[in-house]
Amino acid sequence: MRPDLTIAEARTKICDLGRLFWQLGWASGTGGGISIRVGSTILMAPSGVEKENLRPHDIYELDGAGHVTRAPDGGQRLTACAPLFMAAYRQRQAGAVLHSHSLDVVLASMLVPPGQPLQLTRLEMLKGLEGVGYFDLHQIPVIDNTALELELKDRMEAAIDAWPRANAVIVRNHGVYVWGRDVAHAKTQAECLDWLCRATVRMHAAGLSNLTHDQSVPDLAARVGA
Amino acid sequence: MRPDLTIAEARTKICDLGRLFWQLGWASGTGGGISIRVGSTILMAPSGVEKENLRPHDIYELDGAGHVTRAPDGGQRLTACAPLFMAAYRQRQAGAVLHSHSLDVVLASMLVPPGQPLQLTRLEMLKGLEGVGYFDLHQIPVIDNTALELELKDRMEAAIDAWPRANAVIVRNHGVYVWGRDVAHAKTQAECLDWLCRATVRMHAAGLSNLTHDQSVPDLAARVGA
Amino acid sequence: MRPDLTIAEARTKICDLGRLFWQLGWASGTGGGISIRVGSTILMAPSGVEKENLRPHDIYELDGAGHVTRAPDGGQRLTACAPLFMAAYRQRQAGAVLHSHSLDVVLASMLVPPGQPLQLTRLEMLKGLEGVGYFDLHQIPVIDNTALELELKDRMEAAIDAWPRANAVIVRNHGVYVWGRDVAHAKTQAECLDWLCRATVRMHAAGLSNLTHDQSVPDLAARVGA
Amino acid sequence: MRPDLTIAEARTKICDLGRLFWQLGWASGTGGGISIRVGSTILMAPSGVEKENLRPHDIYELDGAGHVTRAPDGGQRLTACAPLFMAAYRQRQAGAVLHSHSLDVVLASMLVPPGQPLQLTRLEMLKGLEGVGYFDLHQIPVIDNTALELELKDRMEAAIDAWPRANAVIVRNHGVYVWGRDVAHAKTQAECLDWLCRATVRMHAAGLSNLTHDQSVPDLAARVGA
Repeated sequence: MRPDLTIAEARTKICDLGRLFWQLGWASGTGGGISIRVGSTILMAPSGVEKENLRPHDIYELDGAGHVTRAPDGGQRLTACAPLFMAAYRQRQAGAVLHSHSLDVVLASMLVPPGQPLQLTRLEMLKGLEGVGYFDLHQIPVIDNTALELELKDRMEAAIDAWPRANAVIVRNHGVYVWGRDVAHAKTQAECLDWLCRATVRMHAAGLSNLTHDQSVPDLAARVGA
Repeated sequence: MRPDLTIAEARTKICDLGRLFWQLGWASGTGGGISIRVGSTILMAPSGVEKENLRPHDIYELDGAGHVTRAPDGGQRLTACAPLFMAAYRQRQAGAVLHSHSLDVVLASMLVPPGQPLQLTRLEMLKGLEGVGYFDLHQIPVIDNTALELELKDRMEAAIDAWPRANAVIVRNHGVYVWGRDVAHAKTQAECLDWLCRATVRMHAAGLSNLTHDQSVPDLAARVGA
Repeated sequence: MRPDLTIAEARTKICDLGRLFWQLGWASGTGGGISIRVGSTILMAPSGVEKENLRPHDIYELDGAGHVTRAPDGGQRLTACAPLFMAAYRQRQAGAVLHSHSLDVVLASMLVPPGQPLQLTRLEMLKGLEGVGYFDLHQIPVIDNTALELELKDRMEAAIDAWPRANAVIVRNHGVYVWGRDVAHAKTQAECLDWLCRATVRMHAAGLSNLTHDQSVPDLAARVGA
Repeated sequence: MRPDLTIAEARTKICDLGRLFWQLGWASGTGGGISIRVGSTILMAPSGVEKENLRPHDIYELDGAGHVTRAPDGGQRLTACAPLFMAAYRQRQAGAVLHSHSLDVVLASMLVPPGQPLQLTRLEMLKGLEGVGYFDLHQIPVIDNTALELELKDRMEAAIDAWPRANAVIVRNHGVYVWGRDVAHAKTQAECLDWLCRATVRMHAAGLSNLTHDQSVPDLAARVGA
């Protein structure tokens, strides 16, 4: 394990991830969001700017209560995602929270009936998610969207409580919030989730199912997480 | 907000966007177009050249009436899009106008009956478009193509007038013209529009709809644009 | 127009295009081919090597009769495409010939009945092809594949003669040979063709047609090529 | 042919391939694996780390019996793929073994009934695979997944024995192990296999078949491998 990031390193990392997420199509048109916690300081990319062109001094600093302690000068605005990022920090002690507008996640959200979670099983990529095994039935909550992102707060907090084994909340027709114990972990969780949603949508579109021909059976000796 | 671009910076920016648009598949095979206004000077990439290989001295300069005031030497031709770019500058005071041959936009145009606009609602990415909210029914005009791009001029001017809330005109089986108050804004509008068209086409192809399971209701307190 | 390439520049250009084609998925797994003519000297990338890792001294030189005049040392082999490249040089005076294994072209070839050409009309991207207009019905020959590439020679020569308006020959379940008056032109022709095949396949897969809603009519005054 | 890699070069090559595979979507979320043999020393990327961020000193060294002879310091873990990589080294004298989580391979595995191999014929890209011709019916074994990767060992060893003409084993809902005589060969084999799986899935999704219109017949004089 590498040492924790400094605040300066975390600012640079947010800019790097902004470029990456834009390239992946997760942050088109100023969309998406990136937040990293360094000790008790929480860093967040600003709202409404091109995420692939962030510079370290564009980043906001907040305290653990979600109050801005250091704002960039130059007309940036705090992201409307701030209360949603704070939910993952408070309820899950996350080290980083990411928000993507991935089209694959959005399309996957259209397959899930109201009030139900996205359910996934028997895909090896599940093992990339924290604490999930190949044979598990993993559930990721899906909540409906609202006109303003700050209105999502109550729904997201409730979903985080209701699905304690998930480290992501999908917002229908919108995108996903996903977190991890540090920024590398949050990023790999986001990648696994994106792969799983893409698989779900492509299976649906092609009339395929991962259950059709899979004859594998769980081994009693198998331990999740190995 | 950053200061406006100088003419020299705008020439470089057009070259950068040429590379970007080519990478996105919006400018394959010399297709697409890029124009930026700096004060009363309008800059345009030339026609019929590889957009990923533009150099700053390849760029045309025009005045507000659309007359060429400075032409590159070396056999370039003024883009046939010039009258169409001028329509957005004159009728909307655009700061930049982009033209993409995105396949997703072209496929989306095939879904729209004659004389009707592309209609979009309940997708978060709509909020990236100027003045549009999640629950709005947003309309983007679609016009039929012509043999020559300059023949499109009348149709495009009429569409711009008829749909004052849209900042784009889709040309069926061809591509899209999209503009913004400056080049960064035009680019993010183009990205949002592209995402929305891709979503539309993928929903159609996969038999999905964003309306099937969405139970969200507009909040009276919600304000568009936040 | 820029001056013609020197032989040294053409060798470097072939390496650049190798990287590009690999990135586009046109040259996966050592597939695809690239050839440029400089005066009476014809340059060709070698066979069976990673196209993204070509170096200038890996390139073969041939004379106008197709005989190798300069071979790289190091165990490379002349591409089996050589007789097919020569067909375009001899029958069409091409300045460059490209061969791609694009999956979109391959899938499009599966839609075309035996003995018939791929037929395309009413897509703006057609105007990127040499001498083709929006309302034209453009035909690109499709020939069946053979066990060895050199056996394709007779079929390809016959197709080039039979479709004098096309500057490409599609080989079913295999890929495409496409040429132009110089390397930039050949590359843009390949890009347009690839876009058109991708459009064809995606329309088919999504149950869309570019003819369904298009009400445009040719203008008598319209001139192709403007 | 270039000289074999040194151990130091192979360590660097593994890092380069990690970046590449991540870009191709084969190693999302710490997935996938890369191993190269240098003489009797076997190098392997570690488990559970971002494959696009590997550094040369992160790589494990093992002997021909699969025992670790040199471990990185810093908390890395040996990949759970190690016994599977060793199977290809021992049973096939491979020079490199790659493991990808490509979604196209995973989707293709869903099309194959239990106990049957993936069957491919009449696609030019087959000729990129070791010893396979256009008209051959090539078979790639597909085995069911297990909870832990090390449990796959017996199944994979049996599949390698049962399909001596294949240089890959697909694991359903998981990914693929593919090998070659050296790392460049293993990489091109992986690329060809990926293209073929993508073609298979896209044909299925679009209702296309490479057999529908193909009228080509094998020539008695044709020799595979030319």
